Amino acid sequence: MKTDSANKCVIVIFGATGDLAKRKLFPSIYNLYKKGKLSSNFAVVGAARREWSNDTFRRNVATSIQESKIDVDQDINEFLNHFHYLSFDVTNTESYTNLNDLITNLDEEFSIPENRIFYMAMAPQFFGTIASYLKANGVTNTTGWNRLIIEKPFGHNYESAQKLNDDLREAFTEDEIYRIDHYLGKEMVQNIEVIRFANAIFEPLWNNRYISNIQITSSESLGVEDRGGYYDHAGALRDMVQNHMLQMVALLAMEPPNRLTTEEIRTEKIKALRALRPMTPNEVDSYFVRGQYGRGIVNENTVNGYREEGNVDPKSKTETFVAGKLVIDNFRWAGVPFYIRTGKRMTEKSTKIVIQFKNLPMNLYYKSKEEMHPNLLIIHIQPDEGISIVLNGKKIGLSGETNPVKLDFCSSCQDVVNTPEAYEKLLNDCIIGDATNFTHWDEVALSWSFVDIISKVWENSTPTDFPNYESGSMGPKIADKLLADDGFHWWPITDESDYTI
Amino acid sequence: MKTDSANKCVIVIFGATGDLAKRKLFPSIYNLYKKGKLSSNFAVVGAARREWSNDTFRRNVATSIQESKIDVDQDINEFLNHFHYLSFDVTNTESYTNLNDLITNLDEEFSIPENRIFYMAMAPQFFGTIASYLKANGVTNTTGWNRLIIEKPFGHNYESAQKLNDDLREAFTEDEIYRIDHYLGKEMVQNIEVIRFANAIFEPLWNNRYISNIQITSSESLGVEDRGGYYDHAGALRDMVQNHMLQMVALLAMEPPNRLTTEEIRTEKIKALRALRPMTPNEVDSYFVRGQYGRGIVNENTVNGYREEGNVDPKSKTETFVAGKLVIDNFRWAGVPFYIRTGKRMTEKSTKIVIQFKNLPMNLYYKSKEEMHPNLLIIHIQPDEGISIVLNGKKIGLSGETNPVKLDFCSSCQDVVNTPEAYEKLLNDCIIGDATNFTHWDEVALSWSFVDIISKVWENSTPTDFPNYESGSMGPKIADKLLADDGFHWWPITDESDYTI
Repeated sequence: MKTDSANKCVIVIFGATGDLAKRKLFPSIYNLYKKGKLSSNFAVVGAARREWSNDTFRRNVATSIQESKIDVDQDINEFLNHFHYLSFDVTNTESYTNLNDLITNLDEEFSIPENRIFYMAMAPQFFGTIASYLKANGVTNTTGWNRLIIEKPFGHNYESAQKLNDDLREAFTEDEIYRIDHYLGKEMVQNIEVIRFANAIFEPLWNNRYISNIQITSSESLGVEDRGGYYDHAGALRDMVQNHMLQMVALLAMEPPNRLTTEEIRTEKIKALRALRPMTPNEVDSYFVRGQYGRGIVNENTVNGYREEGNVDPKSKTETFVAGKLVIDNFRWAGVPFYIRTGKRMTEKSTKIVIQFKNLPMNLYYKSKEEMHPNLLIIHIQPDEGISIVLNGKKIGLSGETNPVKLDFCSSCQDVVNTPEAYEKLLNDCIIGDATNFTHWDEVALSWSFVDIISKVWENSTPTDFPNYESGSMGPKIADKLLADDGFHWWPITDESDYTI
Repeated sequence: MKTDSANKCVIVIFGATGDLAKRKLFPSIYNLYKKGKLSSNFAVVGAARREWSNDTFRRNVATSIQESKIDVDQDINEFLNHFHYLSFDVTNTESYTNLNDLITNLDEEFSIPENRIFYMAMAPQFFGTIASYLKANGVTNTTGWNRLIIEKPFGHNYESAQKLNDDLREAFTEDEIYRIDHYLGKEMVQNIEVIRFANAIFEPLWNNRYISNIQITSSESLGVEDRGGYYDHAGALRDMVQNHMLQMVALLAMEPPNRLTTEEIRTEKIKALRALRPMTPNEVDSYFVRGQYGRGIVNENTVNGYREEGNVDPKSKTETFVAGKLVIDNFRWAGVPFYIRTGKRMTEKSTKIVIQFKNLPMNLYYKSKEEMHPNLLIIHIQPDEGISIVLNGKKIGLSGETNPVKLDFCSSCQDVVNTPEAYEKLLNDCIIGDATNFTHWDEVALSWSFVDIISKVWENSTPTDFPNYESGSMGPKIADKLLADDGFHWWPITDESDYTI
């Protein structure tokens, strides 16, 4: 794929006047341009309903770049000349004819070998429609390559996801479809593989002989903000668990791949997801719990409960918090629970993975007053990025006691400026044809199959305790019970964590 | 041992006007007093040649405490009242009679149950003499306990060490003899056992399947200073390797003890030393190399070579640097070299242990430009105290490359003020009757037997290349070759170490 003409392409953004394009895509494209990852042989077509001129569009692109605090070079106008706007009606054939004409002109103007990326940065209900029209109107009929980048949500359940996939597959092959899970673009999520497979000390320990449980927390301090309309029909299970949380589980649980190729890595991730123990509807309550935030105090401000948010049903039973225990039935993980939790309006914004190791078979220091503390490996995903290892060390002084000591490496501290935004990396991956950090259909299908069992049970029952956690807390008490029943507890996720607990 | 009267004792310091007493012992006793580790039922007898009064002695004690930067409470005079001086001739019976009378008076004055510590803080040639006289004159004939603390050097070779031990054993049992190796009192040396035996992640890795080699460096930036007369007859092998370096090897190599008792730990250390592969005289040169410093620049000052130092033979062939490869022939360590190096006038003062882990059986990241970097566990003994682990992490950015990242825990940074001096801990151990961190005769005997083979070969040959390393360097080139021949290299020991080498 990495030939000279590999990264020469036209990027068509559907939804170019929208929020994602403005906050993430334009700045990412500019960064790639500055880093020389885009040749000068590229063009961006912004497609959306509004009647914008190229100038208006370019001014918007420039503004978005400035607002994202990137150092802007003098070449910004040269860069902006690659941007063109097309007023677009997704169900009108003429729009696609116009698009094809524009791309053909841009191919010629910028000497682009008919390579095309179609980026779906808009409402999901049009994904299938656009794909069909693109094919029907010959826009994908090129001598170069075609790639489709598609944003979440990828369906609402297994059935709708399969329908969407079938629609897309009429116009694009599986190889051409790049399903974005922006967690897979995060530095430290990508680091999970490196930590596991590039370090001799971890692989021998990475199994049920030495690991007692794995905890993944992804908490937000924000509420639903202006996304109440969407969120009240989605909920935390669909919004976070089906994609991001299960992807992190797969990366942590997968077997070492034969090679670091897209196919080999995906194969192992899919195998891990296939090993997830499915639940019967009756079992759901003993593995998964849900929560909804009430009023509370976040960052010293009193905030509303979920049911008081805009565009939210005042009697909504949508979950804003999920905690679950995943069981992976294979040789490596038999007996090692993977606990996940995610929610809105929690104490702080943080994504962390804690790998808790089993205690020593014999505790030579058992006479000391404090109990032996388990070893922990902590992967800090966001907002801080880094790795910590919690060990036991000698307590300084004359006693023979031990206490936990924390070894830290802060990745984001070292090179904040150069840490690329997830979207920048994923866009670059798509341009060079590397689909490793995108989700394969089989992963999407397996995730929905797993999650659908839970959502069906939840849809058919009404939680009587909602709201069951205060804004600003770490979720409902039942999430703690999930671990307590197994003899564990959630490790704290705040920065000044006290690991002596 | 820990009865109410356990820590009530008279401490007799032979050599009370000397440097060790002043720099280490008096401040340590004061700290123990302040921490409540000494009851008020204690007394210190300073014994030395000079004709000092109690007042002169007490003023000296006070000065030594002030100079060691300890916060002095108002109780200093109450503390000093426990100190008495005795002008002493080690070969004169009358001195011992006087000593016995004084101790008997102090026992009464401070209600001490005839517990006695005899601390040999003086020239080694009198150790045996003093012991014999103590017994002959009934000073050790008490209803309480007697303990003898003895400083290095413990003999000059196996033969003289055995002679000294025999002399001591006429007056004291092995259980009563506390042979000081002040490295065993250092926080991080004591931490070696905790790191190994209180952390579930290390024990499974602590063997020849996962460790490729272990490196122990103890470097000094100072030269021989005013110890030329002693040093020129000792050399680095006797001064550092026979005791400190081999003790650290034993702690790193020993099997987990049944319990953390003196006897169990010593048994395992002795077993590890017994597994040291002995060399024939012909083999010495392929396992051990020596060096002597020439002129050079240390801390930006030009300094003299060893042969120009005071009280040093201008043609001296005494080694000021030793590097060696130790082979431990047992199941755990077969095939894992332990490299040691120690010397004077090296780049900086530092004692560090680096455990280098084997590379992964398969390197998934081999396509990257840089070679995979081995995982390291670094134990910082002095001057900084802490633990580091060097891992491979994802290089920040768009490439899939890895680079080494260092996780740090700095122990001395956290609690500098409270880190007790090695002597304070060892004195406390002796007072409470814990001999774990002192050297058993069997350890001394095994160490001398091992070291004598080397020193005999070195005595019988003249190094033609002396001086063979510049002051301020990390020793002679031959020390690097020792590792290079096995495909390894010394890991750097400076603080800003670049572990990408």
